[in-house]
Amino acid sequence: MTSSLSKYPTIGVFDSGFGGLTVLRALLHLIPQARYIYLGDTARLPYGSKSRETIARYAVSSAKFLHQQGAELLVIACNTATALALEDIQHALPIPVIGVVEPGAQAALAAPSSVPSNPEKRGVLVLATPATVQSHAYTHALNALGLSACEKACPLLVPLVEEGWIDHPVTDAVLKIYLTEALAAAPATQTLLLGCTHYPLIQPAIQRVLEALGHPLAIIDSADATARTTAALVSIHFPNLALTGEPTCTFYATDSIEKFQRLGSNFLGQPVTHVNLIDLGG
Amino acid sequence: MTSSLSKYPTIGVFDSGFGGLTVLRALLHLIPQARYIYLGDTARLPYGSKSRETIARYAVSSAKFLHQQGAELLVIACNTATALALEDIQHALPIPVIGVVEPGAQAALAAPSSVPSNPEKRGVLVLATPATVQSHAYTHALNALGLSACEKACPLLVPLVEEGWIDHPVTDAVLKIYLTEALAAAPATQTLLLGCTHYPLIQPAIQRVLEALGHPLAIIDSADATARTTAALVSIHFPNLALTGEPTCTFYATDSIEKFQRLGSNFLGQPVTHVNLIDLGG
Repeated sequence: MTSSLSKYPTIGVFDSGFGGLTVLRALLHLIPQARYIYLGDTARLPYGSKSRETIARYAVSSAKFLHQQGAELLVIACNTATALALEDIQHALPIPVIGVVEPGAQAALAAPSSVPSNPEKRGVLVLATPATVQSHAYTHALNALGLSACEKACPLLVPLVEEGWIDHPVTDAVLKIYLTEALAAAPATQTLLLGCTHYPLIQPAIQRVLEALGHPLAIIDSADATARTTAALVSIHFPNLALTGEPTCTFYATDSIEKFQRLGSNFLGQPVTHVNLIDLGG
Repeated sequence: MTSSLSKYPTIGVFDSGFGGLTVLRALLHLIPQARYIYLGDTARLPYGSKSRETIARYAVSSAKFLHQQGAELLVIACNTATALALEDIQHALPIPVIGVVEPGAQAALAAPSSVPSNPEKRGVLVLATPATVQSHAYTHALNALGLSACEKACPLLVPLVEEGWIDHPVTDAVLKIYLTEALAAAPATQTLLLGCTHYPLIQPAIQRVLEALGHPLAIIDSADATARTTAALVSIHFPNLALTGEPTCTFYATDSIEKFQRLGSNFLGQPVTHVNLIDLGG
């Protein structure tokens, strides 16, 4: 009876480092039956402060690696790689490729605070890395949905999260500076989109600083929205799926396995095991 | 008459990014007649948060590139690459290779505040990247000179300098945290060694925070000491040097030329021109 049902596909998930594990966490919740292979390109991180050409070269080689490992569908769980290299990756691979920008923009559209009657208030503030902001990928995606966008580069947030200063006065002070500048440029904003997969870890701090500034906003991250888009794509490309499957996660990193295991569990929300060291050149 | 005199050699100077330009600045001051080729491996920076194996691979490929471009003597103007890969680079190249750790330790020994009669006070506090601290290269070099060492990893200082927050309350707050922790571990310290070529740019902030903490220290950076060691090595390996020469600087970067020119001038203290983009793989 079960022979006509398909197995769940192997889903490749890629990020420059650990942030994409927040997307994998949402995927494991929504599609627990799939097999996952995750690559953190930790030897070449961060992507967010580098040029488009370099980011595209790194992202394409990482995506090709996951395809070679058997990925039948690829999730780019990295805003910078999505913003700068989604098309390059789609051209390079013969499998469906999903980024985080488009699902994030759609989540902003669906947010209750983004749909008041006053169109001027349909604006979204996007916090992201310098490279993502420079690409204006979020502005294009939000404008296409009838939303206006204000993008703010926040280069210190990734180092602060990686330092583990999640709930820390220095992080609050840095956020206060970035958010004050951003809100001065877009005072009517009612929605805040976290345009980097590191940022969900400091969402409580962002909420706290916004309240202290007297400007609470609905905060959206793209992890859940990306997982929902992925589930929809799985159901289209892999119909007649069996109701059960064996969930497995295999991890690859291009730098220290020990560090990946230690920091990664904060992002994944559970221990990170089975990490393999690989060399993508460089 | 001048035919018996040698030309000044071509000196290769290498860093993961821009910080090594503070060493090049000292070299230009001390040996203005040489030809310099500088490589900033900006596509793979930062080195300081990565593993020994990855740092050594990056550093050796960068050093080989400079040798291929004609370097007759190599200065590793990067504490992390020196601490983790000096021997690898020396084995890989047939030319003299100078790092910044040994000259920095010697400068600490020569500092007036490091030679009080009380031997317990002959301690040096070293601020550096996590990778440099983990290698304990400074502890080994300082101990060999009869000085004790306390090393403090400061992962946020490089991102703060690269954000341009040189004279900024957040940088002061971060320094206050790092220095308070370090001084609690080494209360008798009288000398502070800047164990990363980014840190000279925030030396005034470090001085200010130390004074506010009631613990002023003699601050030493290894740029001048490294330049002096290089000058000594030049006079040994290239005797009978002509008194004049044509100083030239050629720059190579593995990521954005525009960013290298823009940020680099802060470190070099003069405009950075003639930057060439190269691909070292990765």
